[in-house]
Amino acid sequence: MKTNDTIELLLNRKSIRKYEDRQVDEDTLESLARAAFQAPFAAQLGSLLLSRDSEKNPFSAPLLFTVCVDCHRLELIMRARGWKMKTSDAAMLLFGVQDACYMAENLVVAAESLGLGSCYLGMAPFAADRIAEDYSLPERVFPVVQLAVGYPAEDPPPRPRYPLSFSLFEDSYPELEEEDVREAMRVMDEGYLAQDYYRRADYMVELEGEREETFDFDDYSWTEHMCRKWGQWHAAAENLLGPLRRRGFEVTRDGGEEGS
Amino acid sequence: MKTNDTIELLLNRKSIRKYEDRQVDEDTLESLARAAFQAPFAAQLGSLLLSRDSEKNPFSAPLLFTVCVDCHRLELIMRARGWKMKTSDAAMLLFGVQDACYMAENLVVAAESLGLGSCYLGMAPFAADRIAEDYSLPERVFPVVQLAVGYPAEDPPPRPRYPLSFSLFEDSYPELEEEDVREAMRVMDEGYLAQDYYRRADYMVELEGEREETFDFDDYSWTEHMCRKWGQWHAAAENLLGPLRRRGFEVTRDGGEEGS
Repeated sequence: MKTNDTIELLLNRKSIRKYEDRQVDEDTLESLARAAFQAPFAAQLGSLLLSRDSEKNPFSAPLLFTVCVDCHRLELIMRARGWKMKTSDAAMLLFGVQDACYMAENLVVAAESLGLGSCYLGMAPFAADRIAEDYSLPERVFPVVQLAVGYPAEDPPPRPRYPLSFSLFEDSYPELEEEDVREAMRVMDEGYLAQDYYRRADYMVELEGEREETFDFDDYSWTEHMCRKWGQWHAAAENLLGPLRRRGFEVTRDGGEEGS
Repeated sequence: MKTNDTIELLLNRKSIRKYEDRQVDEDTLESLARAAFQAPFAAQLGSLLLSRDSEKNPFSAPLLFTVCVDCHRLELIMRARGWKMKTSDAAMLLFGVQDACYMAENLVVAAESLGLGSCYLGMAPFAADRIAEDYSLPERVFPVVQLAVGYPAEDPPPRPRYPLSFSLFEDSYPELEEEDVREAMRVMDEGYLAQDYYRRADYMVELEGEREETFDFDDYSWTEHMCRKWGQWHAAAENLLGPLRRRGFEVTRDGGEEGS
């Protein structure tokens, strides 16, 4: 494969969960923000909330960005021109999450290039009511994800990924055979075990119901972790549709008359 | 602000819609893919379909990636471990679109660093039925966006963005005043007009219904374009929920028993 400094930066990026007690200066913050907002967009539907309260921020990070899908600004512009949003909330959310994520990932890459580490925090949507109160969010602004940023106080290795043959499919999506699945599981599990990832994090998802614990940090790895998360968490659609509705998004509603 | 080669690369990126008739070699393709898949994830929920049929690809680009939310692979792994997906489809889609977009944006950045241009094509979700047939997609794989990639045969300037004060909010989302909205509109509209963007593209969204055309390329700019798109397009939620359902995703369904 071909490489260069940017490719190396992308390949070496990993989530950072320990930060130096060191502020990020205004010039650096401006670079992060400008690089983020220059990301491609459907309609500039992403906005960023910032907290520099490192005492409250996760991992005591100096910067906490809350990445939002923001239809509010577009709708203010449309109103100023005598228009009303007609596209359905379902579609606006799909475009909006994309805009927000391209922006956030540009911020991650810019941060890396300036010696900063970062970590996504995916639970923001389920905490949207509290975040909306904390930041006085208007309706039609919804927090998709949070992003802690700061100078790293740890230097873990990049984490394993599925084999390319399990992720990139030319012309046709293949019938994935049992051996393909086993190989992808092996790469992920042996990779995380070799890094002692869960023991160092001192974290296993607890089993619910009648399942009995038979794992310890010698064999608890990525695929077991994934099974416990997605096999036990957030079964109720309302856990997400409720916060969305309270922020003014109704995914089953047609656009037009009833919409904002 | 601080800068470096990566920041400059992010600030100078623009969508490319004309490509040289030149193939992308295997080494370069591997770099793009590895950089993409090393993106942060919730559960490696993104996969990539590739077409190198430049005669059929948009803009005759040598590479067309279809960026998918892919719950199929995770569910195969869960099944192999004796688990079933419990998290609701709404939540999986929200996490999945994030994984897919971080991956896609890493690919965009890697492409830039290797002298390649790119362009997102946002209509893939509405064409999911056709894409699913073309690529033989299994259920639980949904195309979020497409990405054309190739050597650029044009060199447009980077496009305008909202002022930072309209996009980055510290501690609290401000009450946006009419003058803030007007200023954001001015920056966008004057910026696109100065680049003669819509005249060069020879494209205005047609007005529907009783609205009468009063614009030409001397005053048709970004905010008018946005109003016409989002004020006229895809009002029916079913335009998106239908394709999602036919790919096995039901956003209002609780996870667990009924889920896959």
